Amino acid sequence: MLFAQKKAKKLSFETIAKALGRDEVAVAALFYGQAVASDDDVKNLSKLLDIPEDNLFSTEIQAPPNRGSTMEMPPREPLIYRLFEIIQNYGYAYKAVLNEKFGDGIMSAISFSTHVEKEVDDKGEWVVIKLRGKWLPFSRF
Amino acid sequence: MLFAQKKAKKLSFETIAKALGRDEVAVAALFYGQAVASDDDVKNLSKLLDIPEDNLFSTEIQAPPNRGSTMEMPPREPLIYRLFEIIQNYGYAYKAVLNEKFGDGIMSAISFSTHVEKEVDDKGEWVVIKLRGKWLPFSRF
Amino acid sequence: MLFAQKKAKKLSFETIAKALGRDEVAVAALFYGQAVASDDDVKNLSKLLDIPEDNLFSTEIQAPPNRGSTMEMPPREPLIYRLFEIIQNYGYAYKAVLNEKFGDGIMSAISFSTHVEKEVDDKGEWVVIKLRGKWLPFSRF
Amino acid sequence: MLFAQKKAKKLSFETIAKALGRDEVAVAALFYGQAVASDDDVKNLSKLLDIPEDNLFSTEIQAPPNRGSTMEMPPREPLIYRLFEIIQNYGYAYKAVLNEKFGDGIMSAISFSTHVEKEVDDKGEWVVIKLRGKWLPFSRF
Amino acid sequence: MLFAQKKAKKLSFETIAKALGRDEVAVAALFYGQAVASDDDVKNLSKLLDIPEDNLFSTEIQAPPNRGSTMEMPPREPLIYRLFEIIQNYGYAYKAVLNEKFGDGIMSAISFSTHVEKEVDDKGEWVVIKLRGKWLPFSRF
Amino acid sequence: MLFAQKKAKKLSFETIAKALGRDEVAVAALFYGQAVASDDDVKNLSKLLDIPEDNLFSTEIQAPPNRGSTMEMPPREPLIYRLFEIIQNYGYAYKAVLNEKFGDGIMSAISFSTHVEKEVDDKGEWVVIKLRGKWLPFSRF
Amino acid sequence: MLFAQKKAKKLSFETIAKALGRDEVAVAALFYGQAVASDDDVKNLSKLLDIPEDNLFSTEIQAPPNRGSTMEMPPREPLIYRLFEIIQNYGYAYKAVLNEKFGDGIMSAISFSTHVEKEVDDKGEWVVIKLRGKWLPFSRF
Amino acid sequence: MLFAQKKAKKLSFETIAKALGRDEVAVAALFYGQAVASDDDVKNLSKLLDIPEDNLFSTEIQAPPNRGSTMEMPPREPLIYRLFEIIQNYGYAYKAVLNEKFGDGIMSAISFSTHVEKEVDDKGEWVVIKLRGKWLPFSRF
Amino acid sequence: MLFAQKKAKKLSFETIAKALGRDEVAVAALFYGQAVASDDDVKNLSKLLDIPEDNLFSTEIQAPPNRGSTMEMPPREPLIYRLFEIIQNYGYAYKAVLNEKFGDGIMSAISFSTHVEKEVDDKGEWVVIKLRGKWLPFSRF
Amino acid sequence: MLFAQKKAKKLSFETIAKALGRDEVAVAALFYGQAVASDDDVKNLSKLLDIPEDNLFSTEIQAPPNRGSTMEMPPREPLIYRLFEIIQNYGYAYKAVLNEKFGDGIMSAISFSTHVEKEVDDKGEWVVIKLRGKWLPFSRF
Repeated sequence: MLFAQKKAKKLSFETIAKALGRDEVAVAALFYGQAVASDDDVKNLSKLLDIPEDNLFSTEIQAPPNRGSTMEMPPREPLIYRLFEIIQNYGYAYKAVLNEKFGDGIMSAISFSTHVEKEVDDKGEWVVIKLRGKWLPFSRF
Repeated sequence: MLFAQKKAKKLSFETIAKALGRDEVAVAALFYGQAVASDDDVKNLSKLLDIPEDNLFSTEIQAPPNRGSTMEMPPREPLIYRLFEIIQNYGYAYKAVLNEKFGDGIMSAISFSTHVEKEVDDKGEWVVIKLRGKWLPFSRF
Repeated sequence: MLFAQKKAKKLSFETIAKALGRDEVAVAALFYGQAVASDDDVKNLSKLLDIPEDNLFSTEIQAPPNRGSTMEMPPREPLIYRLFEIIQNYGYAYKAVLNEKFGDGIMSAISFSTHVEKEVDDKGEWVVIKLRGKWLPFSRF
Repeated sequence: MLFAQKKAKKLSFETIAKALGRDEVAVAALFYGQAVASDDDVKNLSKLLDIPEDNLFSTEIQAPPNRGSTMEMPPREPLIYRLFEIIQNYGYAYKAVLNEKFGDGIMSAISFSTHVEKEVDDKGEWVVIKLRGKWLPFSRF
Repeated sequence: MLFAQKKAKKLSFETIAKALGRDEVAVAALFYGQAVASDDDVKNLSKLLDIPEDNLFSTEIQAPPNRGSTMEMPPREPLIYRLFEIIQNYGYAYKAVLNEKFGDGIMSAISFSTHVEKEVDDKGEWVVIKLRGKWLPFSRF
Repeated sequence: MLFAQKKAKKLSFETIAKALGRDEVAVAALFYGQAVASDDDVKNLSKLLDIPEDNLFSTEIQAPPNRGSTMEMPPREPLIYRLFEIIQNYGYAYKAVLNEKFGDGIMSAISFSTHVEKEVDDKGEWVVIKLRGKWLPFSRF
Repeated sequence: MLFAQKKAKKLSFETIAKALGRDEVAVAALFYGQAVASDDDVKNLSKLLDIPEDNLFSTEIQAPPNRGSTMEMPPREPLIYRLFEIIQNYGYAYKAVLNEKFGDGIMSAISFSTHVEKEVDDKGEWVVIKLRGKWLPFSRF
Repeated sequence: MLFAQKKAKKLSFETIAKALGRDEVAVAALFYGQAVASDDDVKNLSKLLDIPEDNLFSTEIQAPPNRGSTMEMPPREPLIYRLFEIIQNYGYAYKAVLNEKFGDGIMSAISFSTHVEKEVDDKGEWVVIKLRGKWLPFSRF
Repeated sequence: MLFAQKKAKKLSFETIAKALGRDEVAVAALFYGQAVASDDDVKNLSKLLDIPEDNLFSTEIQAPPNRGSTMEMPPREPLIYRLFEIIQNYGYAYKAVLNEKFGDGIMSAISFSTHVEKEVDDKGEWVVIKLRGKWLPFSRF
Repeated sequence: MLFAQKKAKKLSFETIAKALGRDEVAVAALFYGQAVASDDDVKNLSKLLDIPEDNLFSTEIQAPPNRGSTMEMPPREPLIYRLFEIIQNYGYAYKAVLNEKFGDGIMSAISFSTHVEKEVDDKGEWVVIKLRGKWLPFSRF
């Protein structure tokens, strides 16, 4: 329903994201059932997409979602595979650099945000993806 | 040998990276056999790590590596798993946003660079990972 | 719908490909949801297959597809398995030859086209598949 | 031993291939234990690489090899993955086109040869891989 | 439809096979969508099974099938597992004997036929399965 | 040791099989640790291969072997894959025909023998593999 | 249908088994499509479960079933996992003891019956599962 | 060491089991590192196998073992596969019968013993395996 | 139905658990078909959720469930993955400590209960999960 | 070395844990390379286990470990499998209860501690495992 109305209204994720005060990746994640909508999000989506609020409240977009269920790994989709391949090739390099910079811990994927930018130069178009997560040191116990 | 000398000399990837004019993730990748060293890299590494140049030229760090071979997927290591999980959860969201912004294609993992930053605010320390790849549209044929 | 009309009209991929100015493998890929149709493609398909343009515009053939989803790997289908087996047997040989000829990089599967020919000689019929992809060197960073 | 002498002698697969009257992919396959050397190949390799003939005759390069054993599928190596991805994305398209052109059968991966070319144009360098296999129709029984 | 009519008519694969001039394994394979019917096969099946010819022509039994799709490997079905186990246990023995007898190549599963016989002796009933395939030597290239 | 002496003595499996009064596939299986040698087999092998009897008695060829351990499934080796593919494509057809001919049961892979023949006609060389196993009906309980 | 009527009639597998002259495990297997019903079984089931004979004859319970298809391995269901774990932990111990007692062969799972008993002592209730299978020696060939 | 001495002394598991007052399957499990030896077991094994007690005390046979590590599932070994297949085919039947007889719970594989018997009748030799485990009802909480 | 009525009545698992005299994790497990309801549970649920008792008695919540079937492992859902990761990282540590404290055995997952608490301190909110299972020593046999 | 000295000194994890001021599960994790030792830990371990400090400083116990690498999932070891099974059976129940109590987020496995207790009552011995992790809400972005 969300996708259908988005298409009918010819709205981009960028436009919806601005209206909701959220990032467009978060909005796309919300459409794919990988993120949660607040009450205000529901009201805004209702207006933008012309869907009665009740329909949205009754949908699953407000409950903690069953994240990860839509994606098979390794991904077969070429665009997503390239992202997967970056982790596959540079995983230990990231770990080595982060452990050196921060100590023993992880970058949170929960206290986390991400943002996508387009850059253009004379060599062509470039995608810039920023991943920003809280550093969590392993507890000593 | 590279890791042992790095430890003995107490050199960080950051220091080595500066000396080589490369990013520290690229240097760590080089140590893990996931990236290639140029002739100048070999000379600089030789000096920094106090390893005879010939030893480095004769090692595998100058040949196109067998990338991906060190990593098992899904990763069991918690830090790397978090990166994997980001792709698992947001993969389709990235695809949707990128297709909307750029059309039908992929972000290259080859014409690609990455960089890691530490940010600190009153909530704690944050990791920022930047992925930058060339946009490649699918050829029409 | 596409397959049904193609059968009803007794059109070969070759015929359709000529009408669209595309390669027959690309057309078959389009039918399987592995490639994208341009606006002109839609118009031409509409005429050829006698399907109202709106039906085609409303189908998924114009959106960036979820590539790879139709194929299970390793393939169980004998014809496709043979292609898979060529990669399995000669993968490292291709890599060695390409690295020697081009340096450290990959052949793009995105800036890519492919073409199929039939050759006949006194030993029988031969399939010739040509794969043509842009060489992408790994970025130094 | 083969790889070490090839490196020491600074011989390319192309050079060796010419001396043996074979394709360079076949020679690389032979080095990786995926193809068989004839008696003449052994003699020529012996001269080129400065290895006593007996050493080569006693090695495994003349016995039918245990093909496929060096490669894990899906490949994690980026160059080989791209070839794999072509089969994953276009497998059913190839099947559809070949069945239409040849009937019910397969392209042999045994009565098979392959060849790699470099093409250069103003957009950059291109890899062209040619796969040529005998068409085998399914027997009626 | 084929199975239902076969049951209703109480026809064995053996009977159908004789009427079609084919082997009963081939007929069973045809019923499971693993083999192709010729125009004459369709006519004969139509008569035998009392199905209008058009229904059969419009079914999938005349198109090159998506072979292998009905079977999960390793098979869980005990009868089929025993066949699988024979390959698992004797695979390398077959390879060693065939390479010795024929050289470097394979037995084709395409230029191939198979036949099943029942033998009875004082120890009980015995199944004899004959596999007959063309020997294909690896091409030298 | 067995393979080395066989090679040194230039003995074929066929020759050894005749000397042992066994089938050459069984002998190859014995060499691969997939079959058991009797005391007489040991004596004969000792003579043929010029290996002291005690060495053979002390090897594992007389103990019930850990069958299946040498083979990975699905096989990547092309010759063995073709055999695997026959089961994959015709498994249910064999089951249907055997159930029709024999009732509810299996063909034993234990009370089992196999034999390989070469046939030559004007189309080329053919491999004929015969599988012969006892029919075991499921017990009613 | 079988399960529904069994529940409606409040019949245990034990009761049905007695009426059929079979073991209750066999009857449960029959309900799950893992065993075959004889004509008498059908008549008896028809009476017991109050299902018209024709319905049962027309169901699949008389055809050789596609055994194994209902079970995923390793089992996730705790009771069945415990049985699986017994094989996992004691598999080689069983093999060692059986080879010592019987020679080189297997215990048939086809010429096979099984029976479940309840025992009660002061420590609680105990399950006793008896597996009884014919010993099949590997044929010498 | 245990296996070597057992062979040298020509002791069967049955003989060792009697000397230890344990079941022969338990003894075989102990040899494979799947069960624990008590102090008395060690003394008895020491005498029987002529191994100094200290060697046995210093081996791993007295520590809680890493059970399950020797076995790959599904088993490829034919004898063990048959046991696995019994669980695969009759798993749900066992569950149905046990739940009916005992309620909601499992048969313990820990409070568990097993025993193997040979039976001979005019049809041949039969293996009887008895599995005996404590019934554990699921706790209500 | 259970979930729908729970939502409609705005009942928490905590509230339902109190009314049933059970733990809230057990109640959630019951909703997911991973636990069994007693007759009293059914009556209480009927009142609380305003569902006729007969509907609940006729549902599956009183039969021994097919546990484990709802969960894919490794879990892709982030919250559940964290629990999985704890076992992955600390599994052998738990085993070492428990074997040291209790001897050779396991903690039962059947004679088992679990409870979840929320703790709040100045660092934030904390989840405390208590797992309590009976210790079962391996039987000596 | 750590395990050997622990055994030689007959030290329990409990004793070592007290001396280090850490939990015994953490100490066992440290021995298995799943946790990090502080400088004080190294000094204390050195004294307790009679290992020169330098040996410990030079070992890997102070570097961020490659966690998860020692454990295969699903675990085949029975004790660890039971813990795995708890997650498999109650995973969604935990998620439902935690989401209800805390909102949309996860329990951290990094800001995490765990503790094991033995309880004894008239029914026997009980294991109590406490898992305590910080609640991390998903960031809104």
